[in-house]
This record gives sequence, structure tokens and C-alpha cells, in this order.
Amino acid sequence: MGRLIARRPVLRLTPDGERMRPDALAVEEPLELRVGGRALAVTMRTPGHDVELAHGFLLTEGVIGSVTDVRDARYCATPTRPAGSASSAGMPSPRVDDDGRNTYNVLDVGLAPDVPEPETGVERNFYTTSSCGVCGKASLDAVRLRSRYLPAGDQVRVSAEVVATLPDELRRRQQVFDRTGGLHAAGLFAADGTLLVVREDVGRHNAVDKVLGWALLQGRIPALGTLLVVSGRASFELVQKAVMAGVPMLAAVSAPSSLAVELAEASGLTLAGFVRGGSMNVYTRSERIIIRAAAPH
Amino acid sequence: MGRLIARRPVLRLTPDGERMRPDALAVEEPLELRVGGRALAVTMRTPGHDVELAHGFLLTEGVIGSVTDVRDARYCATPTRPAGSASSAGMPSPRVDDDGRNTYNVLDVGLAPDVPEPETGVERNFYTTSSCGVCGKASLDAVRLRSRYLPAGDQVRVSAEVVATLPDELRRRQQVFDRTGGLHAAGLFAADGTLLVVREDVGRHNAVDKVLGWALLQGRIPALGTLLVVSGRASFELVQKAVMAGVPMLAAVSAPSSLAVELAEASGLTLAGFVRGGSMNVYTRSERIIIRAAAPH
Repeated sequence: MGRLIARRPVLRLTPDGERMRPDALAVEEPLELRVGGRALAVTMRTPGHDVELAHGFLLTEGVIGSVTDVRDARYCATPTRPAGSASSAGMPSPRVDDDGRNTYNVLDVGLAPDVPEPETGVERNFYTTSSCGVCGKASLDAVRLRSRYLPAGDQVRVSAEVVATLPDELRRRQQVFDRTGGLHAAGLFAADGTLLVVREDVGRHNAVDKVLGWALLQGRIPALGTLLVVSGRASFELVQKAVMAGVPMLAAVSAPSSLAVELAEASGLTLAGFVRGGSMNVYTRSERIIIRAAAPH
Repeated sequence: MGRLIARRPVLRLTPDGERMRPDALAVEEPLELRVGGRALAVTMRTPGHDVELAHGFLLTEGVIGSVTDVRDARYCATPTRPAGSASSAGMPSPRVDDDGRNTYNVLDVGLAPDVPEPETGVERNFYTTSSCGVCGKASLDAVRLRSRYLPAGDQVRVSAEVVATLPDELRRRQQVFDRTGGLHAAGLFAADGTLLVVREDVGRHNAVDKVLGWALLQGRIPALGTLLVVSGRASFELVQKAVMAGVPMLAAVSAPSSLAVELAEASGLTLAGFVRGGSMNVYTRSERIIIRAAAPH
């Protein structure tokens, strides 16, 4: 859609002086996700792959489990008010811009008849979102209660040499990052290191949702035998998303948090961090990573 | 509270072999924020400075504007159910852990009598949170409508040489990052480069809320004449927080997004990105940055 990159002039200051030059910025725009016409969430994302993003979000929130749980997904086209917005009088209508054009920022997902609609409202935010629970233990329990595809039983094995190459492979595929320096990336790989899909976004959780939504649309959920690779740190939220999709291994370029490691352990996910320069830290379920004996010195 | 770092063994794999070693992880725990006993938000944060975090969150969400708008803030101590949680039967009680101990993860803020309580529920998430609006223009409008302290009129001037040193100064003060590699940082500086406060957190928005909450508690809001420096990228959300606190300059080590630049421009904030290696890009309101003429070659 040509909406990934925005251009504008920037003043570049260096020790040698100043100059104006054109700059490329990663586009950030809000996406309102509706289910059956009801507002469910708003996320700030990079436009593109919104249908994948919606599928991945609903999968990792436990609303859907397979592609057949979704009847359709479409951008809203007419400027009507969302349900319950009476108190927002005077605010711009969300579906169209000032000139009445479709913003492509409101996506409505219709669920199959037998799929319960998700709860909305503040209670939902307490126990069923990525920020669920109010102690670490409750957060772990909430994910395990909701996941249909815990990866604990996945017998996949991956060589450490392959894992070590994946962040560089992910980086090579980051087209928008190369031009803006402003995007997170997530990639799904097969156990032999074959790239399945890469997505970029200003929000790392969105990049992961897009990847997992792609997998769902491809009929690849639960994502048995795969590795999810992320460009930054591994938070609780990213581990949760992997677990909800049945991904058995998550590799991050930077550090995991304490709760990310705890959830990986409780869910049987292999979690590797600081995967860079041919080395890595393996926090949980290391038996899935095949280590070749070091050559004698 | 000794809750910033968690220790656990990790399997370290390098091209030279494998070994188990102790590792330090940045702690991530949920914080439930209540206002007048009603649940408002849950954020995954690094414990510590929670009262600052609550003040900064309420300031940047437009709920409060000064320290006198808050009557008290305290951790909930007794294991009762939050309002509206009837549908969460069977979930762990949020205030205490399995052994009935206080988790220090539920903070209740009492507002002064004349301060309106914030709306909760899904509508609130559409127009008044950091993910507000469903087109970029609506998002910008929502921030400008709510901000009490637009920084447009701030006449502060800062030398480019000073700005260029601030990310390194921030980095030097990151105590937990040095041990875990897993935390974002935010720092508030005076116009002459004097450090006012640094905070670290697993969530960059939390680090900023802690800094701005500190400023509020110090009577420094609106934060006239200051620079906010962040360790990563500049998203819409971080610009929003700066604008809501009246901060006139935001400097980020990495890239801004398109909407971050648009909001900075619309609000009169000076936004600098890629502040590293003695250089930077200035996206908006560059007249606040004093550039010394380059030496002749």
C-alpha cells in the first residue's frame, strides 16, 4: 500500500557541521480491531499485513484457534460510530479521515458461528490480555489455562550452529529497517533454518502477531517444529504469544526478562537469548538444541 | 526492595563449547493500577518506583496535572476482589500470592476531591490512552485536546554538543542494564546537561512514566527547560508522554516513527533521533538546539 515509509526533511548535525537532507521514517498508524462490529483493541502499528495481525492477535489472545474460526475480515468503509462511543462526542470518526476517505485503520473480524465472542471491557484487561495477572504466578497460570497448544511435548531438535545464524538471516530480510532504522522484526523458521516468513513493525508484539497470523492463515498452527526469532528482547508478552501458537522455540537477539523465562519453563518452550556473534544463552529446555562437541584445543 | 534482578543458571553456548553459569535477569512483574479502588490499568514493569510510575502514568494520561491532584497512593494489603471481577471466578486473587503475602503489585491511588475519576472500559482505550485514535490525525488531535502543558512556547536553548553527550551519560547511570542487558532507560536532564533523574524498566513507557512521575512529585511539572532522553526508539507514545508533561525536548538514541514526528511538530516539541557518535537528526523545532559553526577545513 506504499504506507510503510514516510519521507520528510531532517536537519543532520555532525561534528563537521549541519545540513538538511531527506529522511525515511517507519510509518506508525493506529489499527482498531473489531470483532463482530464491537471494538476490541487499538494498537499502534506499521500498516500492512493487517489481516495477519488481526489473526495473530486473536490467536495469541485465545479468541481463535484455527483459520476456520474466522468467517471474514475486512476494513470498515463507512463513517459510523463504534458501539459505546457516546461519550466521545466531538472526536473524529475513526473510520475515515478529515476528507471522508477510508483510513484502512479499522478492521472488523467476523467469527464463525460457534466461536464465542471475546469479552471486552476493563475486566478483560486484567486476566486475559498480554498484561494479564497481577503477580507473576497468576500471569503464568492465566497463559497455561488459555493455551490450546502448549509446546512442551514438541520433540523438535535444532543444531546450535543453525540457531546462531538466524538473527543475521532475519536482519538481511528486514527491508524497511534498512531504510529507516526504526522497525522491529520477527521471523518464523523451520528446524533446518529455512525461513518461512519475516514481518516488520514499529511494535515488536505486532511483528510477532503478523508472523503468527501468517502461520494460522497457512494452516501451520500449532507451529510444531518451528523457531520464532525476534530482533530485540524477549518479554513475557512475546513468550506468551509463542506459547499460545504452539511454537516450541523462541530465540531473541537481546535479553529475556525474569517472567519470560518463568513462562517458558512452565510451558515447555525453549528460550534462547543474546543470540549473537555465534553464541547464545539457553534458559530453558536446552535439550532441543543439539550441541556439537567443541574441537580440542 | 531487592526485586530488580533475578538470578538463575543459564546454559552458555559459544563456538568453543558449552558451560552452565549463573545469569542475572531483569525482573518483570505486573502492576495493577487502581484509582479510588477501581481498576484502571495493568502494566508489566520492573518493580520499584511504583508510586512515581503511577503518578507519571496518570499525568501522561491526562488524569492529574499536579502533585496536589493526588491524595494518597498505597499498595493494597488485603486479599479482596477488584470491582467487576465476578467473571474471573477461580483466578488467583491479585493482591496476594499463593501464600497470602502481599505481592506489592497492586497500587491504589486516591485522587483529591475535586479531581474527576478517569473513565474505564473499552471506550477509554479508544480515545484517551496512548493508543488513542484510529487515524494518525485523530491521535494527534486527542493529545492536543488533553494536554495542559503544550511545550510549544518553551524558549529553552541547548547546545548540540551537550545533547550529543546525554545518551552516554544515561548509559553510564544504567545500573541494572549493566548486569542484565535487559532494561530500557529514560533520563531527565537540565538544559546545561545536568542529570536530574534516571529510571530503568523492562518497558520503555514505564521508564518514562517513572521519570515524569518523579518530576511531578518534585513539583517540576510542567517540565520547562528540560530534555527527556530515551535509550531506544521514539514512538508516538513516548512523544505523547513528553508533551503531556510539558517537556520541550526529546532525544532518542534510535529512530522515531512517522507519527512521533508528526505529534512533535504539532505540539511544538523538539525531537532528535539517532543521537549517537556525536551526531544526531533533528526532526522538529531545531531552533532550540544551538549549533556552533563548524571549524573550517
